[in-house]
Amino acid sequence: MDQSPVITIADIVDAARIIAPAAVRTPLLENDALNDRVGRRVLLKFEGAQRTGSFKFRGAYNRLARLDDRERAAGVVAWSSGNHAQGVAAAAKLLGMPATIVMPADAPAIKLANTRALGAEIVTYDRHRESREDIATALSQERGATLVPSFDDPFIIAGQGTAGLEILDQAVEAGADIGQILVCCGGGGLTAGIAAAVKASAPGVDLYAVEPAGFDDTARSLASGGRETVSPDARSICDALMAPSPGAMTFPINQALLSGGLVVSDDQVRDAMRFAFSTLKLVVEPGGAVALAAILNGLVPSCDGASVVVMSGSNVDPAAYAAIIGGAD
Amino acid sequence: MDQSPVITIADIVDAARIIAPAAVRTPLLENDALNDRVGRRVLLKFEGAQRTGSFKFRGAYNRLARLDDRERAAGVVAWSSGNHAQGVAAAAKLLGMPATIVMPADAPAIKLANTRALGAEIVTYDRHRESREDIATALSQERGATLVPSFDDPFIIAGQGTAGLEILDQAVEAGADIGQILVCCGGGGLTAGIAAAVKASAPGVDLYAVEPAGFDDTARSLASGGRETVSPDARSICDALMAPSPGAMTFPINQALLSGGLVVSDDQVRDAMRFAFSTLKLVVEPGGAVALAAILNGLVPSCDGASVVVMSGSNVDPAAYAAIIGGAD
Repeated sequence: MDQSPVITIADIVDAARIIAPAAVRTPLLENDALNDRVGRRVLLKFEGAQRTGSFKFRGAYNRLARLDDRERAAGVVAWSSGNHAQGVAAAAKLLGMPATIVMPADAPAIKLANTRALGAEIVTYDRHRESREDIATALSQERGATLVPSFDDPFIIAGQGTAGLEILDQAVEAGADIGQILVCCGGGGLTAGIAAAVKASAPGVDLYAVEPAGFDDTARSLASGGRETVSPDARSICDALMAPSPGAMTFPINQALLSGGLVVSDDQVRDAMRFAFSTLKLVVEPGGAVALAAILNGLVPSCDGASVVVMSGSNVDPAAYAAIIGGAD
Repeated sequence: MDQSPVITIADIVDAARIIAPAAVRTPLLENDALNDRVGRRVLLKFEGAQRTGSFKFRGAYNRLARLDDRERAAGVVAWSSGNHAQGVAAAAKLLGMPATIVMPADAPAIKLANTRALGAEIVTYDRHRESREDIATALSQERGATLVPSFDDPFIIAGQGTAGLEILDQAVEAGADIGQILVCCGGGGLTAGIAAAVKASAPGVDLYAVEPAGFDDTARSLASGGRETVSPDARSICDALMAPSPGAMTFPINQALLSGGLVVSDDQVRDAMRFAFSTLKLVVEPGGAVALAAILNGLVPSCDGASVVVMSGSNVDPAAYAAIIGGAD
């Protein structure tokens, strides 16, 4: 594959400049017990430390900051299972514009509450019976508001890519040569952004999208060469990674730049969350733990350099977390 | 007070050099929601990311690395509720010497298991009926092994002080002027080490020891001018902070350098652990959360610069954590 990605390194560097006043440079952590278990250096990009508890603020702020005064006055509309919702709501609040978010009625309560606390208006829908796209599109047309996609947008992808720039810089600070990067993948915006950022200066680094079983549409699409879809019957504890198919904009980038897709089970995700609790001392939500689950379960091809594991988000309900940490399946 | 502390900045810089190959430079984190709540910048020194999940590895490694070949062959003995135990066990393993740790039979299971997993021999005792000092001293004499105190030792204090050097450097990197530092305090080794490190170059920074109610011996000692003791009936969920009195070596340092002591309730500690879970996305054990509890509850004098909160450890049993996060008191 030799397609030119639509997101250039200049777009991502520009996004980094735009979000710098508001976003957190999240830490790249290392743990000796994890290194020992995997048998090489593992560097953990902890996006739970980002504003709103996931990487989503990066892209949302980069997108909203580009709106002009007229657009800001009319506000923004987005749909999201919860992390993009919080990212958009926080960016809208900081930039002084109204936000309306279409969220599934069964989204984690913490995500609904946090989005509301950030001042957004929430419209709920039935995840299995209604179309969030239709509801959000109708709302944006009614209000003249700008629709903010959760991944298929060049500013969103470039914003998520700022995590990749940070990884490159922080690996140098840690004295590590990166061999591979594992990214938690839903619609593919974070994966595409990080891939575009990293491949521009480090083309030898292998990137892998990691998905939960049942929602392995990117892995299957990379294998088939076309955009595969998720079965409507699919279920997973990874509420953040339930996009129905790879994005029209993200997939060509991922197809051009990724080395493959990896798939983990919900049980492997629970184990990874327990490992993050007991050994890393980090809270991670199910969807944010899939890349860690892949490396803990030996699903990742070996490599000479260090493995970077992106932990993409940490917004999980206390009761659900307590049940998993306490050992329930 | 104008006493010269027995620990010099040169001792701490030397400790930093000794532990550098083995210890983690733990992150200094910042969270916008915490800043908003407190009304000024708050920087979080996250010692849960240290090897063995607490700051204790710093001092233990610095102490054990000074032993000569004959002493290393005879090994080390320590007593500890669990964090010093793990620090000593990990340092002994890395430096190739046997370690025996005297631990309370009711220490958190995770601390007992981790200490054993690090290769140490564990001798348990009854926290309320037996003297850990007597047991450990007898063991060290029997075996010709070196006794490794948990706080009253110049190499231990200097080792813990390396966290203070990191805080100073990392605050500069974050563009923050430090106004005050809050340290979780048991026997006072971490507090004394950080105070000695910080006051050497930043004498205007105020340092506070934070303790759980019932184990506020340092706060009372700072007020009375003498080394006060804890009541044998005192109980707290902060198992890491149960030293019976300030150290003979640590107290004069803390008396000379601290601005005061603060005391938090177990309920405030539980709330701080929940805040760390839901907002910071960090796992923290009860004893590691007392400084955070103090600032969240407005117990801290206001200051012009940033407040640094040390989160000193994160070794907590899953069941106990799940009960607290789930809302149980």
